[in-house]
Amino acid sequence: MMHKTLQDYFEGVATKYLSAVDAELSKSNQHEIGGLVSVGFKEFLGDSVETKHFDCTCVYINDENDSPVVCQHSVSWYDSRRGNPRRSPEFRLYYKSNEVTELMSAGDFLLIAKMKDGSLLVVITPSESTIENQLRSIFQIDDVTGRFKNSAVQGVELVFPVRMLLETIGLTFDDAEPDDEDYLRIILERFPDGFPSTKEFSAFAMETMSLSITPVEAPDEMLINGIEHEEYLFRIYERYLVKDRLLEGFCDDVDGFIRYSLSIQNRRKSRVGYAFENHLEEIFLANGLIFEQGRKAGKITENKAKPDFIFPSFENYHSSEVSSGSLRMLGAKTSCKDRWRQVLSEADRIEKKHLVTLQSGISIDQTNEMKDKNLQLVVPASAQFAYTKDQKDWLYSLSDFIDEILDIQKSKKVD
Amino acid sequence: MMHKTLQDYFEGVATKYLSAVDAELSKSNQHEIGGLVSVGFKEFLGDSVETKHFDCTCVYINDENDSPVVCQHSVSWYDSRRGNPRRSPEFRLYYKSNEVTELMSAGDFLLIAKMKDGSLLVVITPSESTIENQLRSIFQIDDVTGRFKNSAVQGVELVFPVRMLLETIGLTFDDAEPDDEDYLRIILERFPDGFPSTKEFSAFAMETMSLSITPVEAPDEMLINGIEHEEYLFRIYERYLVKDRLLEGFCDDVDGFIRYSLSIQNRRKSRVGYAFENHLEEIFLANGLIFEQGRKAGKITENKAKPDFIFPSFENYHSSEVSSGSLRMLGAKTSCKDRWRQVLSEADRIEKKHLVTLQSGISIDQTNEMKDKNLQLVVPASAQFAYTKDQKDWLYSLSDFIDEILDIQKSKKVD
Repeated sequence: MMHKTLQDYFEGVATKYLSAVDAELSKSNQHEIGGLVSVGFKEFLGDSVETKHFDCTCVYINDENDSPVVCQHSVSWYDSRRGNPRRSPEFRLYYKSNEVTELMSAGDFLLIAKMKDGSLLVVITPSESTIENQLRSIFQIDDVTGRFKNSAVQGVELVFPVRMLLETIGLTFDDAEPDDEDYLRIILERFPDGFPSTKEFSAFAMETMSLSITPVEAPDEMLINGIEHEEYLFRIYERYLVKDRLLEGFCDDVDGFIRYSLSIQNRRKSRVGYAFENHLEEIFLANGLIFEQGRKAGKITENKAKPDFIFPSFENYHSSEVSSGSLRMLGAKTSCKDRWRQVLSEADRIEKKHLVTLQSGISIDQTNEMKDKNLQLVVPASAQFAYTKDQKDWLYSLSDFIDEILDIQKSKKVD
Repeated sequence: MMHKTLQDYFEGVATKYLSAVDAELSKSNQHEIGGLVSVGFKEFLGDSVETKHFDCTCVYINDENDSPVVCQHSVSWYDSRRGNPRRSPEFRLYYKSNEVTELMSAGDFLLIAKMKDGSLLVVITPSESTIENQLRSIFQIDDVTGRFKNSAVQGVELVFPVRMLLETIGLTFDDAEPDDEDYLRIILERFPDGFPSTKEFSAFAMETMSLSITPVEAPDEMLINGIEHEEYLFRIYERYLVKDRLLEGFCDDVDGFIRYSLSIQNRRKSRVGYAFENHLEEIFLANGLIFEQGRKAGKITENKAKPDFIFPSFENYHSSEVSSGSLRMLGAKTSCKDRWRQVLSEADRIEKKHLVTLQSGISIDQTNEMKDKNLQLVVPASAQFAYTKDQKDWLYSLSDFIDEILDIQKSKKVD
């Protein structure tokens, strides 16, 4: 599968930290953003005498809440000195206060982007948050200050972890690709009645992946490619099913629409988690690891917790004759936000716990807290891009994790 | 506002714990549910010789995942002995394996309901989960065993916490009420350009509430009524805006539809959290409490955490001269699921932390863990219905919490 790149969606990007004045102004009703001309936005927004209007998506997101605050509105771009022929033009962007500006405070990170579809995107997040780190990483922005700096949009590929990040801030992608029709035909033949169980769909994805690697040689790549391919197939079928429903129409059935849209979002969110576990399971099996899954075995630890993976088994976990050093647990969360702390109370006997995620960056404060709590984060190599150098030194790749388990389980057999 | 009741939506309900056989069968492709006739479902599903088909919504939900797995499919109801005139009829419900049956295991709680709209609803959740407790509480089911028991649907009112619960399992409600038109007119006059900031909308809700109580006399009721009224106004405006968009139509614009439906769900989720904080703020102010809000003050504790409420101030929190006993923090989460553990790392100096929620029940394992971690849960009186007797003895009402803060802050002033 050919990946699209950031350049397919973004025309130009600039970033800054909000000053007290920027944030204070939000108490009034009309606001302006200056300083965009010096970072090249005249090229994107023009310099006509007429006021120009742009659709703008505003997003506020922090590390605590799963749902960003997003609002769509119209902003104006014009020369604030246009009535004043003696002075050189000064173009500013004007906007009204909205759900997002209400939340911003001094010091917050702001990213403004001109999109290829002609609209603007503004993302605001507290400084040093996970999202700031991730956005700076994919747009390669070294230095952020109180004045706008621009960044040339690079040809960074929209691999799965990058897409996941951009979808977190509310972007969606038109995924149509040349192979879609062929895959849709196969999907409809195999699953004519709609989505099958997650297990069957993951198996289908693994079966139709083009493989140049094996799960033993390259488990990290295998995991990312597998999830990405399943997501690709999922979206093809979803598009087909949604299109069908749209052609039926909703007329003015608001409740029907809300119910349907909720079901679409629920399916997206719940399936990706199960798919993640299914692909991990296959990779662990291929590598000869011995393990059980809390969900599939219907087995529990204390507090009725169901850890995603226990190595080697729940029976061993509960046996006082098995030393805790030979046990491991692994939680699996495609994105962890603040929910990683759940894992801490899922297996008291196991001191060092592991959590695998596809999230491409986490704030330093949070990884420090993980270290304090003896939680080792596992991130597939290609999803580590927004972690700092120090964080990367500490992270496990999936391959590191598999090696650790193999060491434990092999030495055990020799005993 | 008149509340609808469970009887407006549910015709009959029966529950059981899945046996090993029930769960095991899920490995084949066609399954049956027997034992429904003895709990009165013939009355709902009929006893004709012809096979009858029903739309069925299947839901799997546990305490860990925010998004339930939901699937819609068709089930059949027929006499499995219909070719056998010598034997008395035996009606069973037949269904195909699906995304939900894949997840069920022996011991899980199953609720089946015949809905007033003619469809069936099946909810499956691990035993002793929060959802089991909540459903048993609103349907007043004392005893659950391996055989179906039915429950007469009572006239329980769909107050906000009950609705929240039912929406968690994917139900939606047609909210149209006689006063809607009047309110819509006022909303459109006041906010013609779409939703205003959450602060303004909460203020509008407080202003238009019919008040027979004060926040000092009855803070618990005030909070629930305020949130409920704001939610009611929110839905009126949302219906109006969505209807507008639907009339425009989507044709076959799948991406546009997905983007729009995501924005609707994001708005619902993010706004209710901010509304909750706004109403708490007003009630605390009316009661004369001294406090600051992390989000609004842009202030932090260690690890850059922004606790929702600090009593009396961040300055005091950071001052070594202020004894930690005079400080309190309160997290606010309309529903907490597993995310309550976040609060634990938001204010190291404060030993006993508080968390206020509208969630109408939490598993005993989780409240035990809260006690272990010195976290006191605060639940408005009318939202406590699905907690056990012991849990209720331990819970704070909002009024209890306010009294504790007043005690601390008054004794401080006397010093």
